[in-house]
Amino acid sequence: MSTISTNPPSGMRDFPPEELACRRYIEKIIRKVYESYGFVEIETPAIENLSTLLGKYGEEGDQLIFRILHRREKLARALDGKPSESDLADSALRYDLTVPFARFIANNPKLPRFFKRYQIQSVWRADRPGKGRFREFCQCDVDIIGSNSVIAEAEVCGAVARVLKEVGLTEFNIHLNHRQLLRRLICLAQIPEQFEESSLVALDKLDKVGIEGVTKELRERGIEEGSAKKLIELTNSNSNDNRSEIERLKSAFVGDQEALGAISQLSEMLDYCNGSPASGHLKLDCSLARGLGYYTGPIFEIRVMDLKGSLGGGGRYDNLVGMFKGSPIPAVGFSIGFERLVLVAQEKKLMPYLSVGPDVLLCRFPDVEISEVIKTAEFFRDKGLKVEIFPEPSKLGKQLSYAGEIKVKVAGILGSDELREHKITLKQLETGEQINIRVDEATEKILSWIKTGKK
Amino acid sequence: MSTISTNPPSGMRDFPPEELACRRYIEKIIRKVYESYGFVEIETPAIENLSTLLGKYGEEGDQLIFRILHRREKLARALDGKPSESDLADSALRYDLTVPFARFIANNPKLPRFFKRYQIQSVWRADRPGKGRFREFCQCDVDIIGSNSVIAEAEVCGAVARVLKEVGLTEFNIHLNHRQLLRRLICLAQIPEQFEESSLVALDKLDKVGIEGVTKELRERGIEEGSAKKLIELTNSNSNDNRSEIERLKSAFVGDQEALGAISQLSEMLDYCNGSPASGHLKLDCSLARGLGYYTGPIFEIRVMDLKGSLGGGGRYDNLVGMFKGSPIPAVGFSIGFERLVLVAQEKKLMPYLSVGPDVLLCRFPDVEISEVIKTAEFFRDKGLKVEIFPEPSKLGKQLSYAGEIKVKVAGILGSDELREHKITLKQLETGEQINIRVDEATEKILSWIKTGKK
Repeated sequence: MSTISTNPPSGMRDFPPEELACRRYIEKIIRKVYESYGFVEIETPAIENLSTLLGKYGEEGDQLIFRILHRREKLARALDGKPSESDLADSALRYDLTVPFARFIANNPKLPRFFKRYQIQSVWRADRPGKGRFREFCQCDVDIIGSNSVIAEAEVCGAVARVLKEVGLTEFNIHLNHRQLLRRLICLAQIPEQFEESSLVALDKLDKVGIEGVTKELRERGIEEGSAKKLIELTNSNSNDNRSEIERLKSAFVGDQEALGAISQLSEMLDYCNGSPASGHLKLDCSLARGLGYYTGPIFEIRVMDLKGSLGGGGRYDNLVGMFKGSPIPAVGFSIGFERLVLVAQEKKLMPYLSVGPDVLLCRFPDVEISEVIKTAEFFRDKGLKVEIFPEPSKLGKQLSYAGEIKVKVAGILGSDELREHKITLKQLETGEQINIRVDEATEKILSWIKTGKK
Repeated sequence: MSTISTNPPSGMRDFPPEELACRRYIEKIIRKVYESYGFVEIETPAIENLSTLLGKYGEEGDQLIFRILHRREKLARALDGKPSESDLADSALRYDLTVPFARFIANNPKLPRFFKRYQIQSVWRADRPGKGRFREFCQCDVDIIGSNSVIAEAEVCGAVARVLKEVGLTEFNIHLNHRQLLRRLICLAQIPEQFEESSLVALDKLDKVGIEGVTKELRERGIEEGSAKKLIELTNSNSNDNRSEIERLKSAFVGDQEALGAISQLSEMLDYCNGSPASGHLKLDCSLARGLGYYTGPIFEIRVMDLKGSLGGGGRYDNLVGMFKGSPIPAVGFSIGFERLVLVAQEKKLMPYLSVGPDVLLCRFPDVEISEVIKTAEFFRDKGLKVEIFPEPSKLGKQLSYAGEIKVKVAGILGSDELREHKITLKQLETGEQINIRVDEATEKILSWIKTGKK
């Protein structure tokens, strides 16, 4: 037995208590903020029918789906012949939260006219594992469906900005662009329509590979040098002022109703956000492309100074969530990259002191009745304290050294003489300070020691 | 597309907001109580190596494991030959929380001497779905490892009893027995040792099939009528008094050190629990068998009046969690049946009013600037309120009828004249009461309406 590896499978993680406490802390902020914007939570199952998932994530995505092997008769039947992959599975693990959400919407026809849902669940992708890239990871999505108003865009950006601020990030931007504007920019650069998708894919890498890299990729994808340069010139403005950027774009597109419509939506959105946590963090960025093909309007992406890549992104995608229902439903969504956010908060030392484990360890002299120890523990638990009881009849020194091992801040020591007077000895492990106090007055003392002892 | 079923796969569930709120409520209680006993949380991945899981749940269990189909080269290689089930998968979904916990322990050699962990995660079993039986369901485990002291038993029972009480259940018992005592009872009934396991399986059904049913099953399993009757007579005491039951057992086992040792452990445990939430809920029950073979000491099971089956159970299992480490580790665990507990709490109407969705819907007259609406929303969010903004420029009546649709308690109506005076009109939807109030004084009013409006 002991030869079996006890590591989690490749790309999967165990979370020990301290690590999990950090995750819970971030999750709690996200949950609270999302709810403060009126979003309601749903959950969907880990396993979906394969037919629900296939064809939604591109060919590459389909390859990364974890399929569930048939069992018993179904498997036997498949193995009887010469099976192919599709004969061996008809269900699979959730790959993202958007497609299950679209299924949920189709399956729940009585949702309110505007449905604001959030969803915080794991997804699974059979990607090559790497630093910061996992095969099971958590997504935190908010979506507003049912409205065409740019208020929806402003609200999801506000919610996400508030999350980042509450985590303690100050130096972040939400880059902002518009799919229709991008299309018109590509057209203005005289790139033929059939190169639109591949231009977006190339442009999306500006952040990572720079101007030269993108130019090179545009050329490789068959776009003429003049057009490639023109596209980069048009999209890569160095303006840090959203208003002057709006003006620049307006004058570039005089008479182009589609482009002007998109620009005016962006302008509206910037206005709306004046009173929102996103204010001062929105950055109009015509080079932002977002790889996914399904966006139809404004798109956004979180960038943090001195950090490559993004902490999340989203946009308007009016044709996706209605796919199972058979009719388009306007939708705007934003997804926070939970794993990265936890990592950034840890690296930037934004985590507060998180209490993991008990506040108090109850120790005892051998003459004390166990039921009295348990009674005392329950008394403190009633007061909201987290209490562990040392379970064995060891010497006091050993009990106290265990207190050190689990890093508890306070030990409560019970002796039978003291207990007769309803008293307990409290010891602050960090300082060694020790007092004898009535049990019913001890809670306050313990709380004060826990607070001052933060580190 | 619209011909694809939009139901979740068989045995799986979507959780809409109201249902999920109930689950979160119960989860929160469990989490809080477990932590108050000093348990720390861990998580393990959804996917485990198949070798970690196989052979741990019996032959029937192995059949119910969801295996993950190989991909790409590995799959191609398998399909090249004449593959069997074991060629097609080497990983699978978590089947319970105990085996992954055992792997976690072996993989983390620096855990504290006594490790008290809790874990609340989904498990997956390819069981035949049925009423109240799901293929994805949540388990809530607490375990104390490293101690042989019966204090560990008392503590897990105390924690679980406190959970049930905080949920609002009053009429529950934790049935209590001891594996060694059971073995000696079987021996005392002159049942040959090779029938021990099957006697336990039969006895375990006393709750469901009654005395006659168990007698019949014991006979069918090859046990003589006399022994069968004797075993039932010995185990099925009608005593409601634990102390007299202890005395009865003691006198039945005079001179039998193994039995007397077990009885004295039970007696100690009852003593210890005098000051615990389990006090008055523990019921010595010699017929309690608990199906699983791995228990080695005290065993427990939660029973609720007028409810068949159990709400959870556990016991001491000193040989299981050390299996990957290669050395036995003393362990006591208790697992709450989350799905059943949620169901019981709902059926017994123990759920409090759970606020789902926003506290306030902000509506507006057409002359109001959107940025002002958002500013007002953010003001209330800063105060801790949950605020939704009606996103479209509809007539006020339509906005208010949407407020009814999402069952929000308060609508805040913004007009530009009012806003100039920093005022807002609040409308309590239930009563129709309406007041005009300064924005910075509105939070208190809203809170009072939300509270009185509970239903």
